[in-house]
Amino acid sequence: MSGNTLGHLFTVTTFGESHGPAIGCVVDGCPPGLELSEDDIQQDLDRRRPGTSRHVTQRQEPDRVEILSGVFEGRTTGTPISLLIRNQDARSKDYGNIARSFRPGHADYTYWHKYGIRDHRGGGRSSARLTAPAVAAGAIARKWLHGQFGTVIRGYMAQVGEIAIPFTSWDEVARNPFFAPDAAVIPQLEAYMDELRRAGDSCGARVNVVAEHVPVGLGEPIYDKLDADIAYAMMGINAVKGVEIGAGFGSIVQRGSEHGDELTLQGFVGNNAGGVLGGISTGQPITVSLAIKPTSSIRTPRRSIDVGGEPAMVETFGRHDPCVGIRAAPIAEAMLALVLIDHALRHRAQNAGVHVSTPAIPGSSS
Amino acid sequence: MSGNTLGHLFTVTTFGESHGPAIGCVVDGCPPGLELSEDDIQQDLDRRRPGTSRHVTQRQEPDRVEILSGVFEGRTTGTPISLLIRNQDARSKDYGNIARSFRPGHADYTYWHKYGIRDHRGGGRSSARLTAPAVAAGAIARKWLHGQFGTVIRGYMAQVGEIAIPFTSWDEVARNPFFAPDAAVIPQLEAYMDELRRAGDSCGARVNVVAEHVPVGLGEPIYDKLDADIAYAMMGINAVKGVEIGAGFGSIVQRGSEHGDELTLQGFVGNNAGGVLGGISTGQPITVSLAIKPTSSIRTPRRSIDVGGEPAMVETFGRHDPCVGIRAAPIAEAMLALVLIDHALRHRAQNAGVHVSTPAIPGSSS
Amino acid sequence: MSGNTLGHLFTVTTFGESHGPAIGCVVDGCPPGLELSEDDIQQDLDRRRPGTSRHVTQRQEPDRVEILSGVFEGRTTGTPISLLIRNQDARSKDYGNIARSFRPGHADYTYWHKYGIRDHRGGGRSSARLTAPAVAAGAIARKWLHGQFGTVIRGYMAQVGEIAIPFTSWDEVARNPFFAPDAAVIPQLEAYMDELRRAGDSCGARVNVVAEHVPVGLGEPIYDKLDADIAYAMMGINAVKGVEIGAGFGSIVQRGSEHGDELTLQGFVGNNAGGVLGGISTGQPITVSLAIKPTSSIRTPRRSIDVGGEPAMVETFGRHDPCVGIRAAPIAEAMLALVLIDHALRHRAQNAGVHVSTPAIPGSSS
Amino acid sequence: MSGNTLGHLFTVTTFGESHGPAIGCVVDGCPPGLELSEDDIQQDLDRRRPGTSRHVTQRQEPDRVEILSGVFEGRTTGTPISLLIRNQDARSKDYGNIARSFRPGHADYTYWHKYGIRDHRGGGRSSARLTAPAVAAGAIARKWLHGQFGTVIRGYMAQVGEIAIPFTSWDEVARNPFFAPDAAVIPQLEAYMDELRRAGDSCGARVNVVAEHVPVGLGEPIYDKLDADIAYAMMGINAVKGVEIGAGFGSIVQRGSEHGDELTLQGFVGNNAGGVLGGISTGQPITVSLAIKPTSSIRTPRRSIDVGGEPAMVETFGRHDPCVGIRAAPIAEAMLALVLIDHALRHRAQNAGVHVSTPAIPGSSS
Repeated sequence: MSGNTLGHLFTVTTFGESHGPAIGCVVDGCPPGLELSEDDIQQDLDRRRPGTSRHVTQRQEPDRVEILSGVFEGRTTGTPISLLIRNQDARSKDYGNIARSFRPGHADYTYWHKYGIRDHRGGGRSSARLTAPAVAAGAIARKWLHGQFGTVIRGYMAQVGEIAIPFTSWDEVARNPFFAPDAAVIPQLEAYMDELRRAGDSCGARVNVVAEHVPVGLGEPIYDKLDADIAYAMMGINAVKGVEIGAGFGSIVQRGSEHGDELTLQGFVGNNAGGVLGGISTGQPITVSLAIKPTSSIRTPRRSIDVGGEPAMVETFGRHDPCVGIRAAPIAEAMLALVLIDHALRHRAQNAGVHVSTPAIPGSSS
Repeated sequence: MSGNTLGHLFTVTTFGESHGPAIGCVVDGCPPGLELSEDDIQQDLDRRRPGTSRHVTQRQEPDRVEILSGVFEGRTTGTPISLLIRNQDARSKDYGNIARSFRPGHADYTYWHKYGIRDHRGGGRSSARLTAPAVAAGAIARKWLHGQFGTVIRGYMAQVGEIAIPFTSWDEVARNPFFAPDAAVIPQLEAYMDELRRAGDSCGARVNVVAEHVPVGLGEPIYDKLDADIAYAMMGINAVKGVEIGAGFGSIVQRGSEHGDELTLQGFVGNNAGGVLGGISTGQPITVSLAIKPTSSIRTPRRSIDVGGEPAMVETFGRHDPCVGIRAAPIAEAMLALVLIDHALRHRAQNAGVHVSTPAIPGSSS
Repeated sequence: MSGNTLGHLFTVTTFGESHGPAIGCVVDGCPPGLELSEDDIQQDLDRRRPGTSRHVTQRQEPDRVEILSGVFEGRTTGTPISLLIRNQDARSKDYGNIARSFRPGHADYTYWHKYGIRDHRGGGRSSARLTAPAVAAGAIARKWLHGQFGTVIRGYMAQVGEIAIPFTSWDEVARNPFFAPDAAVIPQLEAYMDELRRAGDSCGARVNVVAEHVPVGLGEPIYDKLDADIAYAMMGINAVKGVEIGAGFGSIVQRGSEHGDELTLQGFVGNNAGGVLGGISTGQPITVSLAIKPTSSIRTPRRSIDVGGEPAMVETFGRHDPCVGIRAAPIAEAMLALVLIDHALRHRAQNAGVHVSTPAIPGSSS
Repeated sequence: MSGNTLGHLFTVTTFGESHGPAIGCVVDGCPPGLELSEDDIQQDLDRRRPGTSRHVTQRQEPDRVEILSGVFEGRTTGTPISLLIRNQDARSKDYGNIARSFRPGHADYTYWHKYGIRDHRGGGRSSARLTAPAVAAGAIARKWLHGQFGTVIRGYMAQVGEIAIPFTSWDEVARNPFFAPDAAVIPQLEAYMDELRRAGDSCGARVNVVAEHVPVGLGEPIYDKLDADIAYAMMGINAVKGVEIGAGFGSIVQRGSEHGDELTLQGFVGNNAGGVLGGISTGQPITVSLAIKPTSSIRTPRRSIDVGGEPAMVETFGRHDPCVGIRAAPIAEAMLALVLIDHALRHRAQNAGVHVSTPAIPGSSS
């Protein structure tokens, strides 16, 4: 209710601030019997971790996760899994000069008005650092989904500022610090980022996420539609300003005879639906696209006001990502996994025992 | 949990099917003491109602709402408000020919797989007719928000198929059946719709919604961000495939020095944020844009399969909107109102007694 | 959140006031495919209905239920089931004389302070009439539980005022207006009630409820324990002031060597646990006992104050049950059914696929 | 949903097992601005702590709490407060001999059937040790309630086995290890406990809790009645088998003319209601009474079965409380505080702005 818990049957309750003693979460509702170790979680955390290339924030956080509960003799017990990550490299002094001013584009102003108290150190609770617990929880969700349905969830960078990135291969995504699915574009991206850093500015990005091998039938009829919950989860990621499913905004200029994916015995012909019809999964790949705004913390001086209501100029000298979209792919994957596992459990609650004679047709060839 | 309830403190639980005896909802959590009559609700229902021009479905539904509870001597009592709308013009026989086949682009296939039972009459529960109860509930939310904060929520048609519509004036929106904010474009839209109808095809649309006079501080920090909840509410509207807040997908190609709205004593300079920073309202107008796919029910024959898993050709002869986006503005307004009232009540629960000395700066002049 | 919805996966949202146009509920989360007709529900409503003997209120309400949604061709569809009961015999004028005064023992005073608005007609929303929608919803739950597990839920009157009623037979319960499980005590009960009515007074009661053939494993570990949810559901019934599970308050004077039910291959030896250990069902009968206070609306003049803060004397001349416990058995059965179905669905969500080699031992022979 | 979270607006999500690395909770929804330190919480934890007298378990746990988040510069920020308690004295080997057998009266059997996995070490998640996080969270709730309304919540031991304890004074409660409100009875209690320990047996208890200075108007109308939520919270405490509000089971033999508390300008006359009418607080003291069963882990050999379905004899040699009721008072106080703060916040959400001219009359003199 206070906005720190995600999900209904598989829930993630996060806690912590960017520069407090620790961050973490309690994962509740994970089915018992799943093999789980800290290594399973660490892999995904490492993909999101800061400080791994010169193109992201230089804050050094090992982000080592500790499982405090819910696992016994290497398996989940069905009780809450508590995950703890201690903060290490919190240089709060970097933020001393902005303690009283509101940074344009930042949550400073709104937190101040909402809570009447402001933890100015690194953005406090509004920091993107708080996506780490979600990534950790998402790792558990992914493992379970893969074991149950063979579900594979992968994200990639589709555009950095003006540079659109062609999709060449999933294999390439893990080979470069941009999560770009094309090797040829890397030098261009590096030059672009270096120039931004010199200019003390930042840029936006588009990240795509795809979930394959999702069972048919996930999602609720009116208000917890699968695509609605995906939109909620994605728009809730720091800096996201737009979400598309399937054809997305492109569907505005489509005709019905073009958009509606036909069905044949070989499967759906096309996937304008993005794997969701009437809010419920079709069995096709779920395809999602995100617009991520440019980082607000930049070294360019900007006009603002302070907590006393006086004019102020603000520059941010802390360590920041010049393009927050770069580390967004693992976060978006985790959020998609968390939405899917929640709906998979809801489906199980509601519909066990329902037998449909029609076989699910194969997923789209697209 | 079964996806028929919206909201946390101001909740709307809907029921009904397109061709069942009735549709309606229970609105719970409305503060006591609000003056409320059926007329207050009917006004919004009438804006969404079918059959009002040749450009929308010809189904004749008066959509008369009856208040069954929660209002005593003209005021809300704080207890559940039950709203009932009887279905009148349910010509189920129109659907007999598609009872066994799945319509491309429709929820038929997914409902069948989810529930093992299919109410083929007019789409059953998946019909856009089920947005009527939300519009009714939204009318209550709007009235309360306006009384408390002066909040005004308005939507308009921004694009029909390839035809982008310039924003000329709010006044124009109510004067034409397209909710278009420009008089000059109407003949073009009419010709376009007539042509589509002749072709037995349909088209997509873009609808924008704006909420003005929203108090600063609404929204939760991590998972029930105001923009996340808006994305959820909007993506849950039938046929919506994309949602943007503020600069939306345009922010991909912006620089941080351009996107981050500066603050001055006269207010924010620009509104790329769309009225939300860090998931919390800034006091500026909330601006949302939706992509709506073309209607799936068209008279063009399309390939599909039936419940027995056999190939089938499907044409839809029922009464349908050639552009479902046309009636979407009042629905989007209602959904935005429902999200805002829920957050306004949550804010009240959490933060009463917090006093911030900084005055909220004026809303953006944009 | 506003206290009008029960359950998590199988939810009941009620609406209505004692003297408004209608009462009813929306049942959400009922699994699809259950055969359901209005007759299935009417049977339970008729057992709770007023006016059926001289020992209960003489208000004449047929309590005919109408199913407005969620059932298609005689089976549930998995979408919300809306149930409507029109009020018929609302003699609001009976309450005119108490419109401004607070009746001792009644919710008048607290509703006035909570809502600032008071529907004085028959208690408005606080009336026990509002248990009717729960009984209707409970009928659906019972039918599903019986079909899935053979669960049988039955309640009976165990004590009326000072008169303890021996348990002789379940068959007897349906044969008298008191739900008493013993024929011999009926004349004594009738004389007692007649005397109370003459005296213009009322009395308390104890009602017991038993659920047999409940599967092992229902209930959550810490906060939604099965017995906790039962206590919540029972204490929420109008006029209930105490709830016991199994040995209840008798366990205070037991030793551990007496209370802890031993296990043998033939089953548990005894059922002090009342079918719940560690908050989770054991497979034994669930046994619950309720204390129900005497009706507050009596013809005896009593001291009170009015809405202006002035002293007042209050007598209640409306039609009232002299012992509200008399009609409580079907209500308690319904509440128990609603708790059990909710936990059965939760269990399914969380634990499908878990295989335990230990067979569940037979239920206790007690 | 998985039963590890309590509350709606002020939520407590607990984690941990009796013999895992740590236990703790995340408290969400605490209003910002409350002064809070670890000492505030430690005081209540120390009252519940084991090993403080020879009459309770000898397990040595300092139960030192660490605040990981949600507090900045000595005040709550409105974001989640994470509380961590490391387990120290976990002698799992004590439990080796019962790893395969089910202890009569214990959750072993039901956890095994629910989860298919059993953490046999000290009861795992079902251990009463898991009440510590709730006590810690309750300390925060109490501090806030006291600051807002002057609310005081106190519990005491009212009966140990057959020994009823007269209420002499609140001051006495803190002076003896039994939380007994009478000094004279202490020698008798000590002798009784020593005898039980020699016999290898255990006994039940009655604990009473009272909340004074509770504002009028807390509680919801139908399903989240204040007394229903209290019953839920109390029945969820380990070993509780019965809950009473006000006159409780005594109301069965009362007449309406006796039970219904009259109102005068000086306040309510009597408090049979226990501070709740129609599920909503009256402003009088909330009075609750609990039946606590005798400890199940005793040194007396008892019949059972094992996980293979074979007969077994079980004796428990671990360190256990001979009367779990002894440490129950601080737990019951915490649960009552958690229910009250949740309803106080809900009340604020729903009813701010409602002005009632009738003054709340003074609390009962009883």
